[in-house]
Amino acid sequence: MGTARIAGVGLTPFGSHPDRTGRDLFAEAAAAAIADAGVPRSDVDALNYGNFMGSIAERQGHQAPLMAEAAGLSCPATRYEEACASAGVAVREAVRTVRSGEADVVVAGGMERMSHLETADVTAGLATAADDLLEVRSGMTFPGAYGLMARAYFDRFGGTRTDLAHVASKNHDHAIPNEYAQFRRAVSVEEALSSPPVATPLHLFDACPITDGASAVVFVSESYAAAHDIEAPVAVTGSGQGTDRLALGDRDRLAETPAATRAAETAYGEAAVDPDDVDVAEVHDCFTIAEVMATESLGLFPVGEGITAAREGVTAADGAVPVNLSGGLKAKGHPVGATGGSQIVELTRLLRGDHPNSDHVPDASVGVAHNAGGSVATAVVHVLEVVA
Amino acid sequence: MGTARIAGVGLTPFGSHPDRTGRDLFAEAAAAAIADAGVPRSDVDALNYGNFMGSIAERQGHQAPLMAEAAGLSCPATRYEEACASAGVAVREAVRTVRSGEADVVVAGGMERMSHLETADVTAGLATAADDLLEVRSGMTFPGAYGLMARAYFDRFGGTRTDLAHVASKNHDHAIPNEYAQFRRAVSVEEALSSPPVATPLHLFDACPITDGASAVVFVSESYAAAHDIEAPVAVTGSGQGTDRLALGDRDRLAETPAATRAAETAYGEAAVDPDDVDVAEVHDCFTIAEVMATESLGLFPVGEGITAAREGVTAADGAVPVNLSGGLKAKGHPVGATGGSQIVELTRLLRGDHPNSDHVPDASVGVAHNAGGSVATAVVHVLEVVA
Repeated sequence: MGTARIAGVGLTPFGSHPDRTGRDLFAEAAAAAIADAGVPRSDVDALNYGNFMGSIAERQGHQAPLMAEAAGLSCPATRYEEACASAGVAVREAVRTVRSGEADVVVAGGMERMSHLETADVTAGLATAADDLLEVRSGMTFPGAYGLMARAYFDRFGGTRTDLAHVASKNHDHAIPNEYAQFRRAVSVEEALSSPPVATPLHLFDACPITDGASAVVFVSESYAAAHDIEAPVAVTGSGQGTDRLALGDRDRLAETPAATRAAETAYGEAAVDPDDVDVAEVHDCFTIAEVMATESLGLFPVGEGITAAREGVTAADGAVPVNLSGGLKAKGHPVGATGGSQIVELTRLLRGDHPNSDHVPDASVGVAHNAGGSVATAVVHVLEVVA
Repeated sequence: MGTARIAGVGLTPFGSHPDRTGRDLFAEAAAAAIADAGVPRSDVDALNYGNFMGSIAERQGHQAPLMAEAAGLSCPATRYEEACASAGVAVREAVRTVRSGEADVVVAGGMERMSHLETADVTAGLATAADDLLEVRSGMTFPGAYGLMARAYFDRFGGTRTDLAHVASKNHDHAIPNEYAQFRRAVSVEEALSSPPVATPLHLFDACPITDGASAVVFVSESYAAAHDIEAPVAVTGSGQGTDRLALGDRDRLAETPAATRAAETAYGEAAVDPDDVDVAEVHDCFTIAEVMATESLGLFPVGEGITAAREGVTAADGAVPVNLSGGLKAKGHPVGATGGSQIVELTRLLRGDHPNSDHVPDASVGVAHNAGGSVATAVVHVLEVVA
């Protein structure tokens, strides 16, 4: 199976941008990615755009044509929505169309803007990613959903709030040098532990923040890269997607995320790599417990053993498998519809050697990205490799 | 270029279903399509699902996993949103993944549910498909947008309200035998002309209704059809998508829809057919003027000459090129996120000979579907052919 080469990547700073429009944010990320790629805009065959709650947060649906115009593109433009995995599926479709020969150049990414809303409205908007009939009308929000998953995990495999606090503290450490991160400051395990409770056993510092931002990636086919002398040393070599039942109550167990496991198996299979080959990972840590379950679904640790990885330093910058060197959703921030694209941006820079944290993984050649929607009813996994 | 075979199609009745859930509607359409195809659910590689305003109308985002579960599928499921062309892009991506070999069996379709809302809320929800900053905040809604387009068309090319009333009357005639249509009754030109004004020059009977409903199509690869002895005599042989600026005020002219023209050129090119080869068409007549512009963008008539086609009977059931034999959005109904899929369903039945209006096109071998988003900022065109 062919690959999709990554020719360029771009981000806005993640954070609070209440005075900027969504189109302005996406235009910035897209312009950065297109400049990084050195590809003429007229060569772009398609824009795959991820956004989750723009029709609620900005009363703006049908955003894809708007974002194409903002990015200076006149190609077909399509919006993908898969809750927090919206950009993940946009990226996946770009990979598939480029490697299959259906397109030569595709820009994929996403944008979300939420910080201008009242916090309660953000929570209610995000809750539309859960099952309205079976969960939301009973009062379920995502802190509650992940609180249940954390309790189920602790019950089944053991683990403590301190273990989770190590995840938060690690990711804050990673974000410090990242110029795009929302929170570039250290958070000690003690500080995380002493933050106020949100949904037992999760406390405030177990949760990612409310974030505005955008991401963009330029994918090109191998033949286009060769014909146009495009420098694209990193490629997506495997792509997988998994789906689970939307409502937690409809699932067999809460302490695992089988949609992500299936997505990872597909992605690894396509890339012909094993979890042991992975040098660096960006995973969807919307809550600290989510990072733990993600690393297990990716096969980086056996099921039930991911919980101690952060405490033991295995997933830290200088550990065996650094996880979320960007700072993760926890500290870099989580502009929902942009996040799946931003993971590809971060991994590309880490593998190319031009990320502020590249020094921690100088020999990395295989990276994996894990993007999840809702309580992992959707998961998208991509394998990135240095190919030239 | 390979084709994507259409193995099965399914619809719900279009109309008002305030007591049914969205998942229930989509499950019905998907079950019908899967039964028609005779494909085991375990062979389905992906669900491509279109929905426009579920996060507003039902407070339900992240619908794809929900619809996969409702359809009895455990494959990856992705939602596509492109306003009224949401199912069109879902279908297009299914065609591309199947013909490229990325997948063998893909179910594509969509669902929308709006009739339970107050009419003003439906109008406001639909308006999120226009540019919030440049149009909606100035009071623009879609009747107004298409009213402007109709005035621009009349100014440039001529035409009268009576010409448009012939479009409405024709499509109501077509809907009478269609068991899935919302309005199965004749509407005379006089009745259409005497309906109350909505946005000059458009009156009520120039507009499509508020509709609930779902559609589904099972696409299979040529190799899968051959290996499993699947009867699939109709295939999508060409697929095109075009994008325009979202706001009408940003466009050079209002009396044409260049996004649809570009989509048609791509689709015809892939299929290697000319507009003259088209035997039957389903086009996006959200307003009567939209059908006129659609037939011109499809090359069925020269620009400026589509306006008289309905009056002269060219696009009627026994005319040279029957348009909207289903009844169209005008009389069959327009469940926004389902419409693009339903056009494929109708054309497939017309080409297979099992549509109640098939007798009008007994020798038809080439059909074309035209699905538009907003004021045609997005257009998707598919060419269907009898291939076996």
